[in-house]
Amino acid sequence: MALIVQKYGGSSLADGEKLNSVARRVARARADGYQVVVVVSAMGNTTDDLIKLAYQVNDHPSDRELDVLLSTGEMVSSTLLAMALGNLGCQAVSLSGAQAGIRTDAGYRRARILSVDPRRVLAELDKGKIVIVAGFQGIATDKDITTLGRGGSDTTAVALAASLQAENCQIYTDVAGVYTADPRVVPEALQLKRIGYEEMQELSSQGAKVIHSRAVELAELYNMPVIVASSDGDSPGTLISKEEAVMEVTNRVRGIAREAKVVKITAVGVPDQPGIAATIFEPLVKANISVDTIVQNTSIEGVTDLSFTVEQEDEAQAISIVEPVAMGIGAKRCISEAHLAKISIVGTGMQNTPGFAAKMFRTLSEQGINIRMITTSEIRITCIVSENRVDDATRALHKAFALDRGEP
Amino acid sequence: MALIVQKYGGSSLADGEKLNSVARRVARARADGYQVVVVVSAMGNTTDDLIKLAYQVNDHPSDRELDVLLSTGEMVSSTLLAMALGNLGCQAVSLSGAQAGIRTDAGYRRARILSVDPRRVLAELDKGKIVIVAGFQGIATDKDITTLGRGGSDTTAVALAASLQAENCQIYTDVAGVYTADPRVVPEALQLKRIGYEEMQELSSQGAKVIHSRAVELAELYNMPVIVASSDGDSPGTLISKEEAVMEVTNRVRGIAREAKVVKITAVGVPDQPGIAATIFEPLVKANISVDTIVQNTSIEGVTDLSFTVEQEDEAQAISIVEPVAMGIGAKRCISEAHLAKISIVGTGMQNTPGFAAKMFRTLSEQGINIRMITTSEIRITCIVSENRVDDATRALHKAFALDRGEP
Repeated sequence: MALIVQKYGGSSLADGEKLNSVARRVARARADGYQVVVVVSAMGNTTDDLIKLAYQVNDHPSDRELDVLLSTGEMVSSTLLAMALGNLGCQAVSLSGAQAGIRTDAGYRRARILSVDPRRVLAELDKGKIVIVAGFQGIATDKDITTLGRGGSDTTAVALAASLQAENCQIYTDVAGVYTADPRVVPEALQLKRIGYEEMQELSSQGAKVIHSRAVELAELYNMPVIVASSDGDSPGTLISKEEAVMEVTNRVRGIAREAKVVKITAVGVPDQPGIAATIFEPLVKANISVDTIVQNTSIEGVTDLSFTVEQEDEAQAISIVEPVAMGIGAKRCISEAHLAKISIVGTGMQNTPGFAAKMFRTLSEQGINIRMITTSEIRITCIVSENRVDDATRALHKAFALDRGEP
Repeated sequence: MALIVQKYGGSSLADGEKLNSVARRVARARADGYQVVVVVSAMGNTTDDLIKLAYQVNDHPSDRELDVLLSTGEMVSSTLLAMALGNLGCQAVSLSGAQAGIRTDAGYRRARILSVDPRRVLAELDKGKIVIVAGFQGIATDKDITTLGRGGSDTTAVALAASLQAENCQIYTDVAGVYTADPRVVPEALQLKRIGYEEMQELSSQGAKVIHSRAVELAELYNMPVIVASSDGDSPGTLISKEEAVMEVTNRVRGIAREAKVVKITAVGVPDQPGIAATIFEPLVKANISVDTIVQNTSIEGVTDLSFTVEQEDEAQAISIVEPVAMGIGAKRCISEAHLAKISIVGTGMQNTPGFAAKMFRTLSEQGINIRMITTSEIRITCIVSENRVDDATRALHKAFALDRGEP
């Protein structure tokens, strides 16, 4: 009997009615003859509510305790979904991350999965049961509960799918699949039927929220096909899988990703010596601040400007960490610029075709949009622009790269 | 260093402010030089809210899943209390029932503790930490979460105190201790400084809500002194402990307990044969209906009337089970009588002094209160009376037995 893993996000499980609707979808897969493992997020805003409670009693709650607290959210939704399935006459059992064999390191709040021991899940499947697993959580070797950080439930689902050798991993969310751009900004945006792992990873890490880039990375590692689809309706969604060799000939932009609330921080006039980047970024990593785009401008007369972006909520902390360090190694000053946004075009083979970058820059310039920073990867070109122009930029680029004309 | 176990009920943990107040009390005990293990219930109405959620998705949720669901309530309060203690500069760690070594049988919803493995708790205490344990829950041998049913957190606290050989077990609640009667009904009621295990057990099982009789039973078994006190203020509370031999000379009423919402069910005209009680009560036990007072009237001409009481919420189910069984063994009919209450006087040596029973019956009769059923134990006399007269009965008995004049 073929096995599939389905994952449902918090907005798909927000109340009793939605839980029942998800239960019907799961039951349908079972009736279609599949063994089904379901991974769930916490219901609606549960996680935020729990975090609020924590900060009511402690301004700096310990990560170990926060993980225990947050893990209860997924336990609640997993057991409620098992009950909802019971109500439909399906045999279902809920398992915590620990019970499902999700072993992690002890990095509370953002633990990494070390291994999956699927024995308990397999034993329950053998009894004919649907297995509901609390996502986002695992157990460290010292038997303490950990949570996996952002995208945790997506990662749980893909890790389980890989260890159970599932036919595929289905990620159900509140959008119908992966689009060429955010349909709320670009009404002409088209849904992609299929996309490669690397392209999806770039789109995700650049702000496309349908699936976390970390889960895509894991899926690529185990060559696990992932389907992203809406938990409402019957749209087939988007298949994320290995690019086939025949597709390689077509170099094209597949989608546009964007992320607002970006802050650019620049250490100005840093003496250009080996090790300065490490000196500046190591304390940020220790403070768990995620540094995104990094650009070091060309060195002029032995000094250089080092710029990087962080999320807006990390601005104050990042500056308070970087400023003394930068001044300590001889920087002239530190400046920060808020209200920025990232916009990226993503597509295979882009870097071998210089025309893409030029076309992107020209399109933005024609709209009078100033580019503050540029970075590129193998399959992505990213510009940092003013936040209030990012929607215009998205629409203009969508048109310029003919994304409204369907898949090539 | 002496070790104490403290237990806090849900009303003492209902919000951030109350959590902080409990944290200060715990920190004070630590500062006084004790090693402290704290057992917590779920915050406020959490358990009821979770049960409501369950019934939104399933009219008959499975016990196994309900236990997982309910166990999250105590996990949340335990970790929040650990955070609140962290905020006061105390090192604290929260443990689930499973992590604290509470091993139970697999009787979901009302599991019994089989053993306590205190190694993890002791290891955390050795590190200088305050240990917060999620009450009301344990882990069955098949690694599934169980809950302990009514009085579960009290029972967790006493079981941990016994296995850790604590100096005592302190149960903090919203009343200041054990009273001669409910002070809301009898304003003259006095707080007892001390009471024996058996007396307390009878008071608890007859409706005095300060501590569950099951926890008192366990405390007696391990001779663990229990202190019941208010989580507000500094009243010394009531010490529940072994009666000393010198106290045995004084036979006296120690307190009056009452419980409303009682229903009396009678199987009328049952042929008086061996085994009829078992035939009637076994199916009730299987349905998890708690049968309280049982009275079988004297057999006249080979038939007998068998009466018992259940809680009002179990009335319909109890009748639907008992009626066919009773008719099957030849009963004439089954009748039920609702809106009754139990009232009990409790005190050591009562049964050896016939005057107590007579005085109780006379007092009720003087008030014009009709007695529907009578049962007695070694240290208790219980009457079933009409629910709307039970407050009058309580006040009259309190006066008749001179409970307002202080401890003898």
